[in-house]
Amino acid sequence: MKKVGVFLAGLGHVGRSFVDLVYEKAGPLRTRYGLEVEVIAAAKSDGGFHTGQPLEPDQFLRRDTVWTDGNPAWKPAMKVTDLMAVSECGCLVDCTPSDFRTGEPSLTYLTAALGHSWSAVTAAKGALVLAFRKLMNLAREKKAELRFSGAAAAALPTLDIGISALAGADILGMEGILNGTSNYILTRVGEGLPYEDSLREAREKGIAEPDPSFDVGGWDTAGKLLLIANTCLGMEFTMDDIRVLGITALTVEDVKRARKNGGTVKLLGKCEKTDGGRGWNLEVGPSVLDHRHPLFRVDGTEKGITFRTDTMGTVTVTGGRSNPRGAAAALLKDIINIHR
Amino acid sequence: MKKVGVFLAGLGHVGRSFVDLVYEKAGPLRTRYGLEVEVIAAAKSDGGFHTGQPLEPDQFLRRDTVWTDGNPAWKPAMKVTDLMAVSECGCLVDCTPSDFRTGEPSLTYLTAALGHSWSAVTAAKGALVLAFRKLMNLAREKKAELRFSGAAAAALPTLDIGISALAGADILGMEGILNGTSNYILTRVGEGLPYEDSLREAREKGIAEPDPSFDVGGWDTAGKLLLIANTCLGMEFTMDDIRVLGITALTVEDVKRARKNGGTVKLLGKCEKTDGGRGWNLEVGPSVLDHRHPLFRVDGTEKGITFRTDTMGTVTVTGGRSNPRGAAAALLKDIINIHR
Repeated sequence: MKKVGVFLAGLGHVGRSFVDLVYEKAGPLRTRYGLEVEVIAAAKSDGGFHTGQPLEPDQFLRRDTVWTDGNPAWKPAMKVTDLMAVSECGCLVDCTPSDFRTGEPSLTYLTAALGHSWSAVTAAKGALVLAFRKLMNLAREKKAELRFSGAAAAALPTLDIGISALAGADILGMEGILNGTSNYILTRVGEGLPYEDSLREAREKGIAEPDPSFDVGGWDTAGKLLLIANTCLGMEFTMDDIRVLGITALTVEDVKRARKNGGTVKLLGKCEKTDGGRGWNLEVGPSVLDHRHPLFRVDGTEKGITFRTDTMGTVTVTGGRSNPRGAAAALLKDIINIHR
Repeated sequence: MKKVGVFLAGLGHVGRSFVDLVYEKAGPLRTRYGLEVEVIAAAKSDGGFHTGQPLEPDQFLRRDTVWTDGNPAWKPAMKVTDLMAVSECGCLVDCTPSDFRTGEPSLTYLTAALGHSWSAVTAAKGALVLAFRKLMNLAREKKAELRFSGAAAAALPTLDIGISALAGADILGMEGILNGTSNYILTRVGEGLPYEDSLREAREKGIAEPDPSFDVGGWDTAGKLLLIANTCLGMEFTMDDIRVLGITALTVEDVKRARKNGGTVKLLGKCEKTDGGRGWNLEVGPSVLDHRHPLFRVDGTEKGITFRTDTMGTVTVTGGRSNPRGAAAALLKDIINIHR
């Protein structure tokens, strides 16, 4: 049995789903993978939980909320990196929100974890989008593993396909529906509901955030495309290399016209070889897919990605739950694949 | 740079495609994966090629055929296992034909290779179908890796998804279109061509073998289903556990009726939980899929598989080249993932 002591950063929906999952899956983790995953410390922006012993869920979570007041395990105002320094952990699980402007707080936490030679798994895109090569180099230097399935479409296995399943093949291009929110809205617009009504419906269902510009503007898709392309192609693209167009300018008429011709409109992140194979073109924008396209039927909050290769033909993967539990499952998968 | 000395068994289409691929990909194998893959010996049923030095392709292949007459490297009548004993290899690449009755010659070769503590990759289903647990136990005992993507739908990544991408999730069921030949025939029948004409066309195109009963009878699908289920679920099913029905009894009318109702007929291999989760039901047979099924549009020689899970939702992968080069690419992928 191998013990994996987890430092959990971020106690929002994904972080709490991760805790649920780890305790729910304790049995199969032991029997199937020989792993004992224990949450040793858990932190949010204003402090952390730590007792020196593995934390039971009810020591910091009560009825689906975080329990601080009167909690003996709660260390208020303790800096997360200070808590990391005194915690006997081996793996950071980063469930903090994505910030594309600063990469924080993820950038600080990932840097500290790798600096301690901990492995790290993250569901946050910001730090990797801003400092991909720096973080990967730090991981290599410290002989620590850094994985980020949770940040690259979560339960849809984009990186597993690109790294393992297509090993040895040249990837000539890829196209993905990588954002569930905008795909949901586009699907509803395709069904005849105006854009504003579709967006409102998505908000009401908790699919769209109060400020949806990150999703409908194409930025979330661009961030995932960047991580997938850099990882699977071994490149060092930055956000400046990606032309980004969202779906806000689309009208019901645009979508109707595509459907009349047997097509469907999707927000695609694309990375294609150009210049006879010498360069790459990266872009995010609405595309009309015809009915033979392998992503044609990826509707609602579902996601999907297609890889074109030289030796293995075209490989497409679709599905994967688009919710905090799916993201938590992706984090747990990365932990298993690092430590199994 | 890590050297991988390959013993190649079988010099049919897949074996020769593997040789082409290894030499074509020598550059990326070195730069991307730090691997120097060298064919040290190559064998077919009536002898082998061996010089004590890595073989260049033109030392045993000439104009896409195997060169024996007057070839100084050719050792006629040498038993393959004797050649294995004197070859300084570390990896068996098994491209021999599948034989579900005896598992041979694959069973003998895989047993010998693992016995030498070589890693082994195979595109042949027979030995694994008959002796799955025995071979896996031998591999574990000898601390040798045995992989068989090439036998489990080749360039379609079935095992990569089931083992890595879904790690930590419970697989509740899976359904696959796993045989390109029968899917091609069914697609043509769906387009209105009678079964016999569809089969003849598939034969003329080299998609169906002269004796297609293995494919159209559902046995190839059953063999792949068995390998995928045993690997991804950690089970020990045998062929006797699978109810197998082929597509030979289908008529154009059956398929037309399905299409009239908006469906399509596919030969599916299925593995589903039964008895409230206590048992499993495995079967192969024609199924009518409705247009929302993720495999609905998998047509022609294409393949696909859908996994239903508890935490990650439904994940479907489709595509992957269905030809000897695709199978060779799957063998090379397994070599890379073992040795990288």
